[in-house]
Amino acid sequence: MFQNFSESADPSKGAERAGALRAKMSELSLNGFIVPRSDEHQGEYVPKSAERLSWLTGFTGSAGTAVVLADKAAIFVDGRYILQVRDQVDAAVFEPVFSVDTPLADWLKANASPGWRIGYDPWLMTRSEVRRIAKGLEAVGAELVPVEQNLVDAVWKDRPEPPLSAVSEQPEALAGKPAGDKIAEIARAVAEKRADAAVLTDPASIAWLFNIRGADVPHTPLPLSFAIVNAEGRPELFIDGRKLSNAMRDKLEAVADVREARDLSARLGELGKSKRKVLYDQEVSADAVARVVEAAGGTIVEATDPVALPKARKTDAELQGTRMAHLRDGVALLRFLRFIEESPAGSLTEIDAAKKLEELRASTAAEGEVPLADLSFDTISSTGPNGAINHYRVTERTNRRLEPGDLYLVDSGAQYRDGTTDVTRTVLIGEASPERLDLYCDRFTRVLKGHIAIASAHFPKGTTGAQLDALARVALWQVGLDFDHGTGHGIGSYLCVHEGPQRISKFGKAALEPGMILSNEPGYYRAGDFGIRIENLIVVRQAELVPGGDRPMHSFETITLAPIDRRLIAPRLMSAAEIAWLDNYHLRVYGALSGWPSLSDTDRAWLEGACRPLVG
Amino acid sequence: MFQNFSESADPSKGAERAGALRAKMSELSLNGFIVPRSDEHQGEYVPKSAERLSWLTGFTGSAGTAVVLADKAAIFVDGRYILQVRDQVDAAVFEPVFSVDTPLADWLKANASPGWRIGYDPWLMTRSEVRRIAKGLEAVGAELVPVEQNLVDAVWKDRPEPPLSAVSEQPEALAGKPAGDKIAEIARAVAEKRADAAVLTDPASIAWLFNIRGADVPHTPLPLSFAIVNAEGRPELFIDGRKLSNAMRDKLEAVADVREARDLSARLGELGKSKRKVLYDQEVSADAVARVVEAAGGTIVEATDPVALPKARKTDAELQGTRMAHLRDGVALLRFLRFIEESPAGSLTEIDAAKKLEELRASTAAEGEVPLADLSFDTISSTGPNGAINHYRVTERTNRRLEPGDLYLVDSGAQYRDGTTDVTRTVLIGEASPERLDLYCDRFTRVLKGHIAIASAHFPKGTTGAQLDALARVALWQVGLDFDHGTGHGIGSYLCVHEGPQRISKFGKAALEPGMILSNEPGYYRAGDFGIRIENLIVVRQAELVPGGDRPMHSFETITLAPIDRRLIAPRLMSAAEIAWLDNYHLRVYGALSGWPSLSDTDRAWLEGACRPLVG
Repeated sequence: MFQNFSESADPSKGAERAGALRAKMSELSLNGFIVPRSDEHQGEYVPKSAERLSWLTGFTGSAGTAVVLADKAAIFVDGRYILQVRDQVDAAVFEPVFSVDTPLADWLKANASPGWRIGYDPWLMTRSEVRRIAKGLEAVGAELVPVEQNLVDAVWKDRPEPPLSAVSEQPEALAGKPAGDKIAEIARAVAEKRADAAVLTDPASIAWLFNIRGADVPHTPLPLSFAIVNAEGRPELFIDGRKLSNAMRDKLEAVADVREARDLSARLGELGKSKRKVLYDQEVSADAVARVVEAAGGTIVEATDPVALPKARKTDAELQGTRMAHLRDGVALLRFLRFIEESPAGSLTEIDAAKKLEELRASTAAEGEVPLADLSFDTISSTGPNGAINHYRVTERTNRRLEPGDLYLVDSGAQYRDGTTDVTRTVLIGEASPERLDLYCDRFTRVLKGHIAIASAHFPKGTTGAQLDALARVALWQVGLDFDHGTGHGIGSYLCVHEGPQRISKFGKAALEPGMILSNEPGYYRAGDFGIRIENLIVVRQAELVPGGDRPMHSFETITLAPIDRRLIAPRLMSAAEIAWLDNYHLRVYGALSGWPSLSDTDRAWLEGACRPLVG
Repeated sequence: MFQNFSESADPSKGAERAGALRAKMSELSLNGFIVPRSDEHQGEYVPKSAERLSWLTGFTGSAGTAVVLADKAAIFVDGRYILQVRDQVDAAVFEPVFSVDTPLADWLKANASPGWRIGYDPWLMTRSEVRRIAKGLEAVGAELVPVEQNLVDAVWKDRPEPPLSAVSEQPEALAGKPAGDKIAEIARAVAEKRADAAVLTDPASIAWLFNIRGADVPHTPLPLSFAIVNAEGRPELFIDGRKLSNAMRDKLEAVADVREARDLSARLGELGKSKRKVLYDQEVSADAVARVVEAAGGTIVEATDPVALPKARKTDAELQGTRMAHLRDGVALLRFLRFIEESPAGSLTEIDAAKKLEELRASTAAEGEVPLADLSFDTISSTGPNGAINHYRVTERTNRRLEPGDLYLVDSGAQYRDGTTDVTRTVLIGEASPERLDLYCDRFTRVLKGHIAIASAHFPKGTTGAQLDALARVALWQVGLDFDHGTGHGIGSYLCVHEGPQRISKFGKAALEPGMILSNEPGYYRAGDFGIRIENLIVVRQAELVPGGDRPMHSFETITLAPIDRRLIAPRLMSAAEIAWLDNYHLRVYGALSGWPSLSDTDRAWLEGACRPLVG
């Protein structure tokens, strides 16, 4: 299995470990130390060897930061993790802080005294995070101090070794463009920024650039590594050589100089010494990179990772691949949804369901030609009140039965060689009382209206996700409701399940361009009671011209294929156009999935019922 | 009359005047000079003495900048003025440039050579404009150079004297808060930013702070002046003493030190010399202010004008005042709309209509207790193709007859002592052919749907105008249409008709807070054919709690009172909720305006017809 259901960290160790860290702080005359979730690559998933935040605090979410002072400590998390952090962390040791209301920089500013020295590991924080925090500390006469060795590593006795997974090639037929063409394109972009070289620290950028994949972290095929793209001359890949077969090394050496990862700092120093202009993304790259270059006399040119946008605009081959991945994934989901509906209410637990879904993904993929490579994240299998916990991960301790009248929310995804999926469905278990069903239907239908507003939107070239986000919320806002997460995130192609710069949220500043894949996942959560989310993936396309229209528009193609629970929809709250969208979507789902060669007649019959028109 | 219809500038002088400027540039060894529309206060309206851009180029729009180089010159305007600039400026002398595609900084970067010196007047540009341009020039090895005396002033022989209009008091009953309280509030805000003093350069901020008004610029009751608000001690007002009666001076001296405007620079130098921290808004204040403070040794604390937000959140007295102003304005509009409808098609020109509307505003105001103080801007009285020109101003040369089948678009507003209005209506003149009427109705109804989406929106505390903007556009986007301006701007209380920070546009970063007044004005423009805009003013309010809602929401109260042309609405494109909004709005318009004491029976009957339910 690609997931497990055990508690992966122990909150009870927080006091002892914070104590050990404090002893180390005191040796170095530090008044505090910052422990982020990130590793040197600032990605969403990190290897066991970099799980410092979880080791220290018990918190296993994908984003968060702890600060340890001599007499207090805090852990900062966003809206997704407010409930989870209270569950996983000893609040007597680490005060949970909602980072949107109180950013870490503000908290430190309020808690630090003049003359204080707060330590941080410059490989684990970006320059822009460092600047924000340093500015807050400076305002009160305190100082942010880089440390040579990470203090957690110094006290974490049995820290695992870094991973050494084999690197594999992503075939050109799936990538849609040879590595050589990509390298030339990025080298031009570096030259256009008047830089001599760009440092890439995001392994997803490196995977895209060289058409390679790895397996160093859970759920994302990343080859942990660094790269330097030179405006002129070959790029340099910095990677532990033990990850490369001879054949793979030969392939890479055809387009790049391959060096050991441990040589990166020295090479950055050389760039600095030879007064090079080095492109560096202060939002995604380790502060240490810029420090080394500048300390040696080089110049940092701050600019967005030049791979980010080209990677986000998928090639036709990548889009075709993702459609195939979604077909396969849709068949697995259809089998799963039927299994859930037909299992006696109360007979399954969240873990049973998550296991079944993974089995069905694996067996369905085995019927085709592309096997299941991994899940794209730990399945969120949540029923009743657990559904209201965003990014819930079920464990033996939190496991609940899917009881009659529950809403069951399942957010899951897969990694296939031809594409990454991410889909959420919310279904009714058994029967609900009429009052309860009314409430469910009202909320579910409002979420669905938001989903349809995004799915069917047309918008001019240049429109950002920030401009579209409210469309997913209006139906909830009208009755005093909302959801505390973005409407959609970018998705990679057999890469990260969360990819930028494209996103649909009030922070989505990137123009949505043809070929970008995003999620469309409005929700509604009633704390302690239930959660609803409806998520499909969508691709930005050039819209067909409407007669009389006077400017070219973009629109979305929905690529996820799975029925939406008709029992939870109140047609009276929907417009004719919304009902038509849903019926068309279900028609398309039926058309695509019913043709799967090994689909059973009973599955096909169930699908037909699930996809029949909403009214009449 | 508060408006005229003559061509106020002469495009034919562009070549000669650019020549004179170039001679001056060459004396000072400058390779270029920047001529913005702004005066020292960076406001939308400037006195005749500061109309440098119009004198030089002929362009009379409210925003734009010219750059004169030795061998070429360009004028940069935004989407509102693309058509107008081609009409007003000699393109052989000043190349018109669309500033959204090619910002001035980019153009200069592309056109300047290493070693070039481009001059600017630091009193006429904000620090953030200066920084943007300087950065572009630096990238090519050129330099942005402040000049002591403005080069246009040096060659503009008959430049008018600066205005000396009398300052008057804004009564506390209308302002809702005594000046002393406001001063204490702003002084606290300055102290919270850890600054010793704030420099105010926006006369609207000063008008609000001291509860005064002036008449130095057209259409806005601004007293041109500067102020320094000290964190401790009295504020200082810098104003030409000839604008103050003895009584007014006594009132002001009760709360402030009153100094001559010409003493500002010396005082800024003193602050610098005594090492003060001076709060300064780099987005709205002259670069010169920061230069003087820093040159003398002071520190600039960059922060938003501390008056901007408190001024935007209107007091209850101001909101009550604005409702009265809108009632009076609505009666004038009703009389005007009836006049337009009942005049034989083809009998009126745009100028006739604009004059009539101003007369009706004046006479209607005279029936009440608060006279018409001014128009809040030159009336946009535009028919047929002129309606597609955003911010069109009718002149004897462009004047057209309102012909049968035309759409007539009138965007106008008034300044009354108790409030500022701004309203747009689009009406059908006579009859249109069935095909034409279909086209009009489709477009008008889509614009109306956008208007209603904003007017009826509920949204959580903290929501910005950028998040709401798309709601006004979706119905147009769906058929490949859009409009090239924001959906709404802030409005002052007997102050600026365009006020920040509140706005509804993709650039609207300020949270919408209760008491803020905004416009709601989506449109559609078919170049060379017709224009449509529907504009009401709206106030941000705390929304009533909806049963079952789980968070407090805000909503809008529409305060403009004027019928929307029913002949241009296609009910089949509207939802039941949208039709209900319109019918309710018309019911409210009828209820409010029909009670005006001196309304004639024929006006009342016309109003009843204009406000009857849309269907049936």
